[in-house]
Amino acid sequence: FGWTEVYDSPSNAGSGKGLRPALAILSAEAVGAAGATAVPGAVATELVHNFSLIHNDIQDGSPERYHRPTVWWVWGPAQGINAGDGMHALARLSLLRQTENGMPSEKALRAVAILDTACLRLCEGQYLDLTYQERVDISQDAYFQMVEGKTAALMGCATELGALMAAADDKAVQAMSLFGRKLGMACQVQDDILDLWGSENTKVPPAGSLLNKRKSLPIVYALQNATGAEKHALGDVYFKRVMDPEDIEKIIGVLDSLGAREFSQEMADTLCQEAIQALDEAGASAQGIDDLSSVA
Amino acid sequence: FGWTEVYDSPSNAGSGKGLRPALAILSAEAVGAAGATAVPGAVATELVHNFSLIHNDIQDGSPERYHRPTVWWVWGPAQGINAGDGMHALARLSLLRQTENGMPSEKALRAVAILDTACLRLCEGQYLDLTYQERVDISQDAYFQMVEGKTAALMGCATELGALMAAADDKAVQAMSLFGRKLGMACQVQDDILDLWGSENTKVPPAGSLLNKRKSLPIVYALQNATGAEKHALGDVYFKRVMDPEDIEKIIGVLDSLGAREFSQEMADTLCQEAIQALDEAGASAQGIDDLSSVA
Repeated sequence: FGWTEVYDSPSNAGSGKGLRPALAILSAEAVGAAGATAVPGAVATELVHNFSLIHNDIQDGSPERYHRPTVWWVWGPAQGINAGDGMHALARLSLLRQTENGMPSEKALRAVAILDTACLRLCEGQYLDLTYQERVDISQDAYFQMVEGKTAALMGCATELGALMAAADDKAVQAMSLFGRKLGMACQVQDDILDLWGSENTKVPPAGSLLNKRKSLPIVYALQNATGAEKHALGDVYFKRVMDPEDIEKIIGVLDSLGAREFSQEMADTLCQEAIQALDEAGASAQGIDDLSSVA
Repeated sequence: FGWTEVYDSPSNAGSGKGLRPALAILSAEAVGAAGATAVPGAVATELVHNFSLIHNDIQDGSPERYHRPTVWWVWGPAQGINAGDGMHALARLSLLRQTENGMPSEKALRAVAILDTACLRLCEGQYLDLTYQERVDISQDAYFQMVEGKTAALMGCATELGALMAAADDKAVQAMSLFGRKLGMACQVQDDILDLWGSENTKVPPAGSLLNKRKSLPIVYALQNATGAEKHALGDVYFKRVMDPEDIEKIIGVLDSLGAREFSQEMADTLCQEAIQALDEAGASAQGIDDLSSVA
């Protein structure tokens, strides 16, 4: 978790903003329970998220995350794979601790199934993401299918577990799950935009996803709508074996001329509205809606 | 699982002998239940075993298993890591299907905890195994600690789940767990011996573990008991960055002169006897003891 430096001294450096556990706890509160009831679900989703980041960094060959060396970069890919696997197992074990809170076994089993299903969807999404890197012809449907797995599944798991552990009724649990998934999709589209155009606050080097040919919504939109010279310009760059940083400017120029940024921003906004609507359907409190809107 | 070739045609090539699911099912039978009651546990342990093999092949850089190309060799390391992660999640989901057999939720949760704990031990053992590759000073205790995680934990999980699903009493479940762990350690020591000296039936190229500096019991014993010239001969080879196949003969000569094979065989035999003793304590039927002894 990055709480220490490589040789055990405590660290104050950043290590993720803890969005998923915050969602789990605020979801429990939004449907009227104490946030603490959702802690085992919050911990489990954060551990799954981190296991997947540890593996993703190896899959992408990324040497840095949060401006610090990645696990595999310090300990080698073999230990990195294994550390992720161990964290995957720990996630389950921490979820099982919910029975210590007096959660009935039947419900605890349902929580385990929710987490495992989200893990499987996460892997399906990651499979698509890796596959799409080799392809150009990705439709918007195919893009959102990937995002539903890779990003939305685990955020939906966090909000669903929060509501389940808060003893909300079935309808509210389903609506909170939908909230998390819609929010996850909105966040991914927003990240896609930030990755290409940056923001004043972000320190992430822009266009990282472009360099490894990841398919983001602006790119998918542009590849679908480009004609003639634009298509040619995108294709020139995409069929290079390795993309150079200089190619990025060229691609962003084409994206701008096609309105890919505006299209993506509208999509993110729509998804956000759908997320808020799901919160309403879940019967979330006004305070809960406020808190959940501000955290994401 | 290797049931098809790379491009989807059905395959008759081998893909593992299914030891763990056989142990789960025979364990259920040995304590008086129908083997079928243990199927969800059998499937789950086999899926965990295969997820760990998929990852181990990447960690070791192995291009082949069962005389066929490994997952990462065909699909690349990124997809290989992800396929293993997906199988890890599937293992859990198949265990949850036990409730369809009428297993009470409380017991089903206990089964999930047994599987998750075994996964964590497996990763701990794999961590030690990778760490030991860089070291020479491995004691027998340290070796067995590694084997308890890497090999024994999942075999103990298979036999424990088999007995649990067969509704055996707590004492019998614990004894069946011990049986599986002792058997796992015996199997590992036996594999260590086969890896170095081979057998008439094995097609595995010998000394694979030696080439990647894995610590097997004969090696650990030899490093502890070597003196003077023997120590020098082992050290010469072990401090080479990459070991050559020609070095193997030299090492095996030293192992033979120190009686490392006989020592290891005695250890394997003792562990086997302890395993059988645990079966007795579990109250396994005579037929069950016969079946479980012959499968391993």
